Amino acid sequence: MNNFTLYTPTKIRFGKGQIAKLSSEIPKDAKVLMLYGGGSIKRNGVYEQVVTALDGYDLHEFSGIEPNPAYETLIKAVAYIRENGINYLLAVGGGSVIDGTKFIAAAVDYPGDPWKIVTNGGQDIRSALPISCVLTLPATGSETNCFSVVSRRETGDKQSFGNPLVHPKCAILDPQTTFTLPPRQTANGVVDAFIHTLEQYLTYPVNAKIQDRFAEGILLTLIEEGPKVLANPDDYDSRANVMWAATQALSGLIGAGVPQDWATHALGHEITALHGLDHAQTLAIVLPALLHEKRKTKREKLLQYAERIWHLTDGSEESRIECAIEATRVFFEEMGVKTRFSDYQIDDSGIPQLVAKLIEHGQTALGEQQDITPQVSERIYRAAV
Amino acid sequence: MNNFTLYTPTKIRFGKGQIAKLSSEIPKDAKVLMLYGGGSIKRNGVYEQVVTALDGYDLHEFSGIEPNPAYETLIKAVAYIRENGINYLLAVGGGSVIDGTKFIAAAVDYPGDPWKIVTNGGQDIRSALPISCVLTLPATGSETNCFSVVSRRETGDKQSFGNPLVHPKCAILDPQTTFTLPPRQTANGVVDAFIHTLEQYLTYPVNAKIQDRFAEGILLTLIEEGPKVLANPDDYDSRANVMWAATQALSGLIGAGVPQDWATHALGHEITALHGLDHAQTLAIVLPALLHEKRKTKREKLLQYAERIWHLTDGSEESRIECAIEATRVFFEEMGVKTRFSDYQIDDSGIPQLVAKLIEHGQTALGEQQDITPQVSERIYRAAV
Repeated sequence: MNNFTLYTPTKIRFGKGQIAKLSSEIPKDAKVLMLYGGGSIKRNGVYEQVVTALDGYDLHEFSGIEPNPAYETLIKAVAYIRENGINYLLAVGGGSVIDGTKFIAAAVDYPGDPWKIVTNGGQDIRSALPISCVLTLPATGSETNCFSVVSRRETGDKQSFGNPLVHPKCAILDPQTTFTLPPRQTANGVVDAFIHTLEQYLTYPVNAKIQDRFAEGILLTLIEEGPKVLANPDDYDSRANVMWAATQALSGLIGAGVPQDWATHALGHEITALHGLDHAQTLAIVLPALLHEKRKTKREKLLQYAERIWHLTDGSEESRIECAIEATRVFFEEMGVKTRFSDYQIDDSGIPQLVAKLIEHGQTALGEQQDITPQVSERIYRAAV
Repeated sequence: MNNFTLYTPTKIRFGKGQIAKLSSEIPKDAKVLMLYGGGSIKRNGVYEQVVTALDGYDLHEFSGIEPNPAYETLIKAVAYIRENGINYLLAVGGGSVIDGTKFIAAAVDYPGDPWKIVTNGGQDIRSALPISCVLTLPATGSETNCFSVVSRRETGDKQSFGNPLVHPKCAILDPQTTFTLPPRQTANGVVDAFIHTLEQYLTYPVNAKIQDRFAEGILLTLIEEGPKVLANPDDYDSRANVMWAATQALSGLIGAGVPQDWATHALGHEITALHGLDHAQTLAIVLPALLHEKRKTKREKLLQYAERIWHLTDGSEESRIECAIEATRVFFEEMGVKTRFSDYQIDDSGIPQLVAKLIEHGQTALGEQQDITPQVSERIYRAAV
């Protein structure tokens, strides 16, 4: 096991009716800005629950944070906060709203060009407004971690940053808020959480047994419960299991002390930036091709994955590995998330541009072995056409 | 899955050489009291590492916190703190030292009789000194949770309390500090962590798949790695896996949203108080008898345990359950922890007194069903002779 530091200070309130407890978590005298997306929270009753829970607070609103939150939108919220003396942020939504809120929290007192928060990876953040969140879309794990991904439309950039100062103080997770999610978002969330888990698991062994078993527990849960939430959107238990699995997939716990490989995310971000596909769609395109490309250096963990997750114990090592990758692809497809560029009517003509963007973003030595060079990335993209 | 609140704010620094990072975690101007036990940390080099790491600090010492920390000892530390203006506590040791330090932290500003901290279960603690810890014995999970068990020698009481104010700020876990543990303490730690896990797992199903899988991951890890740390005390990887398993067993994570059954601990505490056995020895005596007694209400989870942990899938349900209980007993015995009163030269004559103490401490409706009455507890004790 490698050395690690693990810090997960977010207080989690999980279950039915937890939104009503918001007033126990946010100081009564806070000047609160509630941030949300396109308005689905008004249709599913979450908006009303939040406003009721915060009755008596000085409550402001900022809506319109889009999927893959845009820098151009977020800086408008920063201006609003400065003008109105807001001192507490409440993100209500999925990973995009929470990620966007983290950027906003850090930008309010950031000296100079706020885009540098992102380009510097968050390391020079010195203060941030306190954040809490009400999660409505289990997927990214943003609700309890200190990471954020922000896009800049004018340049086609999508990049991440992280800093302990943007950990949410409290995360409210009520699985009932996910009953009305469109199937596509539900499926995207399951696939996103599954791939987050694999990116911390499918590298090389370091004899970290707890981390491996926990990761496998998340994967098995998503495989069992993912199809159920698609088939029965208001099955509370399955929604709860998916929600908790997605949080644990990127809370920091399963990645503590083990090598990690975020190449799938890096390659996927460029696809979203160029072609506008959903985040999870891009990951589902990249991952199978990446695992096939890196099957030699990931051999031992791929065999463990084949055995413990897909119960593949017969046949040659090569065939077990190929079957495990194929089973992963089939799982994504069964969730309704397609796994090839061509499924989204995208041909190979954009690949040079994707690779150029990877280079521009310094993503030239990816993977747990830092051996996914632009040439290798290009092979992965081409194998995914 | 049941509703839950999970709050795990302790920053964990895990791995080789982490003690040297203490000065990054404790404010430079803190007046620090280092608390420890019987002096083993002076023999194994941990004392020296801590003192070196805190060079330049106003560092005081309080030694002599014993296993099952005694109220009578702890109030002496409280007096020392008040006299010397100490404002930061650093526990260096195992669960007893950390538990004792939590009591001390809460007692310093507690109005009135400090024993009420314990008898009130910690609920009226209003402030506590900040605590960090250097763990040297993986077992209790105290390093990242907010619970403590304190004994009072003059009355033969051993009781627990908990409050979020006594969460350690930082926990340093260097597996190398455990290389020199006596085999008995190593084994006790493995058994303690294993039983903590079972007490949050072997109840009734609530379809909490992540919690179940994580609990099973801890159990499997302890079964695999426990014998290895006995056989090869300086096997870093196995020591690291046991240490991380023990922390996760009682961090709050696997117990969030599931029923819990702490009857084994309640019955065990009385055995320690009356007969002076090690904590883990008492648990190893009580658990198999308790599981047998409650095999009907715990049937579904016992079958899951039998299958996923001990790979028992053939035979009648009854036989699989009995085999799983027996396998658990054999595991404890193989770790060198005996599982019957008679192994410790204790007969049944003390049982009425054990039951009387349970009643005195209000432990009259134990277990996840609150159906372990004093009569049932007596049956369990008698079955364990």
